[in-house]
Amino acid sequence: MKRSFIREILEVIGSDTVSFAGGLPDESLFPIEAMQKASQEVLSTPGALQYSITAGIPTLRQKLADYYTGMGLETKSENILITTGAQQALDLISRIYFREGTVVEAPAYLGALNAFSANDCPMYPVPLNDSGLDLHTFEEMFKQTKRAYLMCDFQNPTGICYSDEVRQKLARIAIHHNGIIVEDGAYMELFFEERLAPMSLYAPDHTLHVGSFSKTLAPGLRLGWIRGDEKLLQPILALKERADLHTSALSQHLAERFWESGLFGKHLRKIRSAYKRKCDALADELTSQLSDFCFIKPKGGMFIYGTFPEEIDAKELALACLKNGAVFVPGGEFYPDTCVSSEARFNFSNTTPEEMRRGISIIAQTYKAYMHQKK
Amino acid sequence: MKRSFIREILEVIGSDTVSFAGGLPDESLFPIEAMQKASQEVLSTPGALQYSITAGIPTLRQKLADYYTGMGLETKSENILITTGAQQALDLISRIYFREGTVVEAPAYLGALNAFSANDCPMYPVPLNDSGLDLHTFEEMFKQTKRAYLMCDFQNPTGICYSDEVRQKLARIAIHHNGIIVEDGAYMELFFEERLAPMSLYAPDHTLHVGSFSKTLAPGLRLGWIRGDEKLLQPILALKERADLHTSALSQHLAERFWESGLFGKHLRKIRSAYKRKCDALADELTSQLSDFCFIKPKGGMFIYGTFPEEIDAKELALACLKNGAVFVPGGEFYPDTCVSSEARFNFSNTTPEEMRRGISIIAQTYKAYMHQKK
Repeated sequence: MKRSFIREILEVIGSDTVSFAGGLPDESLFPIEAMQKASQEVLSTPGALQYSITAGIPTLRQKLADYYTGMGLETKSENILITTGAQQALDLISRIYFREGTVVEAPAYLGALNAFSANDCPMYPVPLNDSGLDLHTFEEMFKQTKRAYLMCDFQNPTGICYSDEVRQKLARIAIHHNGIIVEDGAYMELFFEERLAPMSLYAPDHTLHVGSFSKTLAPGLRLGWIRGDEKLLQPILALKERADLHTSALSQHLAERFWESGLFGKHLRKIRSAYKRKCDALADELTSQLSDFCFIKPKGGMFIYGTFPEEIDAKELALACLKNGAVFVPGGEFYPDTCVSSEARFNFSNTTPEEMRRGISIIAQTYKAYMHQKK
Repeated sequence: MKRSFIREILEVIGSDTVSFAGGLPDESLFPIEAMQKASQEVLSTPGALQYSITAGIPTLRQKLADYYTGMGLETKSENILITTGAQQALDLISRIYFREGTVVEAPAYLGALNAFSANDCPMYPVPLNDSGLDLHTFEEMFKQTKRAYLMCDFQNPTGICYSDEVRQKLARIAIHHNGIIVEDGAYMELFFEERLAPMSLYAPDHTLHVGSFSKTLAPGLRLGWIRGDEKLLQPILALKERADLHTSALSQHLAERFWESGLFGKHLRKIRSAYKRKCDALADELTSQLSDFCFIKPKGGMFIYGTFPEEIDAKELALACLKNGAVFVPGGEFYPDTCVSSEARFNFSNTTPEEMRRGISIIAQTYKAYMHQKK
């Protein structure tokens, strides 16, 4: 089993390399003081240090249930299963539901592809388009698999936001064929303009909605969740018990306490506007310094995705850039069968404007040299 | 996939039920003040809240490496992989190494059996005896599987401690047949008299030693680890990345900081002597109130295991006791194919002397009524 390009890169890059590779949130935005306060409160009793129940602590599950209900997707705490990051949700779901295969986006979130391939789940990729994906192709494949994994909000890697119309049609397909769509909402709250209703709203009993605190609060806590029909959650719960008993009780209590303090809304507004500024800054650098790279600016999330001229092998270019002190992820990594591609993903959440300028300058110079060498 | 008796019991018992069922540490012994202090320090920078590397934070891995080296088992930080509790270690190891089958103890740790069965790993049980297990039977099976899962220290559920001679012979068998023995050391530090050298010491390249902070520090952190040869760890690391990216960075930093503070040794001495007193107290209650229950007092760990007269179905009895306000785990649960058994496991770490008296009294009365009904 090969390790992922991104994780391997994360582990070897020096501190002076400008990385557009990972999906790391800006740690200067972490609500450190509030978390210190929360930790003092939470650790004043031993509960957060003791074994807990597999589904997750009831108070946090209730808050998440209320959150969905507030969006119009009626949810009880029994419909929530806390996981060790959204990554564990994908591992568990694929072990239970994707053994016979699943439709995936092309390109798709690398961590999902890696989880599914580790579990030998056959994958059927459907190309993305500006409003989501081709519904006809999707339905033809979904008829067979009855399973799909989609990221409707500011998709990783492309930044695409599925239109409401596409979401409704996908939901109808899921219901019509009596299948299950796993909707990964990891970036749902990182909108720059508006939040669309999750696709799950239109098919509550035929979807599993995966969420994460990694992008909104702190990834180091390893906190995610699955929202779904109790019957669908039951086998996942039994497997989770065998996978790690339960998710860190301390992490759960901290997130719950932070939420309870009333600071979450303000914090979300702060990171949304910070990421919008970062997105604008990276888009400006790319446009001015690397005009051959073609992209559509996203309306949320953490990534700008686009294409170099088609003769470029973006992986070769990424490795050349890495040697010169900057790195991005070549698009080929995001396809089930890693392929040669001229596409590339740039993360904007974890670099300062100065680093962006320097990093894109390195990449632009490397690109010029690479093109020169090719001729 | 059925859920485990213990986890289901844990989730339904009322607060007035005396539970000898779980393996919960005594939370009044948690070093709460030290953990509060550690959390303030750890959360003064954003590192503990950010994404981290899959293998675990280097400082904690180095401490664990030094811990093994101090025991004579030379270990580098590269030989340590941090996991989300020892439970995740067992899930990951079985997904990589046990697909073709493994030798297990009979009876064995329920969480291990559940992980292995969830991953469809065939299990070949070898009966335990007072000094470990029957080496001839073990070798006959190990020849075939080349894999085994053993808990040499204060085994869960039996409390048996493998003799040093048996450990050395097991190590020679592992080397001779070029196989892998997974040694689960979850209870290793909970000795009442002395700590034996881990079996892994005698076969460092043919063993994976699994450890846990759940019994020594706090299970709510969900922190465990695997010690092994780098080549053996590599595929486990790649799978862990796909399973949950990494273990809670906050939990890792807290454990590391607590260890760094120098308080760990004193804390271990405190819990060892507290658990020894609890073991003595439970043994006294069982002897005086439930003299039909036959057991050997363990020299460490968290459990007293023994047998009722052979006509008893301990599961029937456990369910009857549960109705009356006390519960233990029937021994049949600890066998790969859950069986009718007169054996039973009593946890002593998580009840007070008063609760022990009341709980064993309830069980003794239920036992009498049950026996009366049987006649």
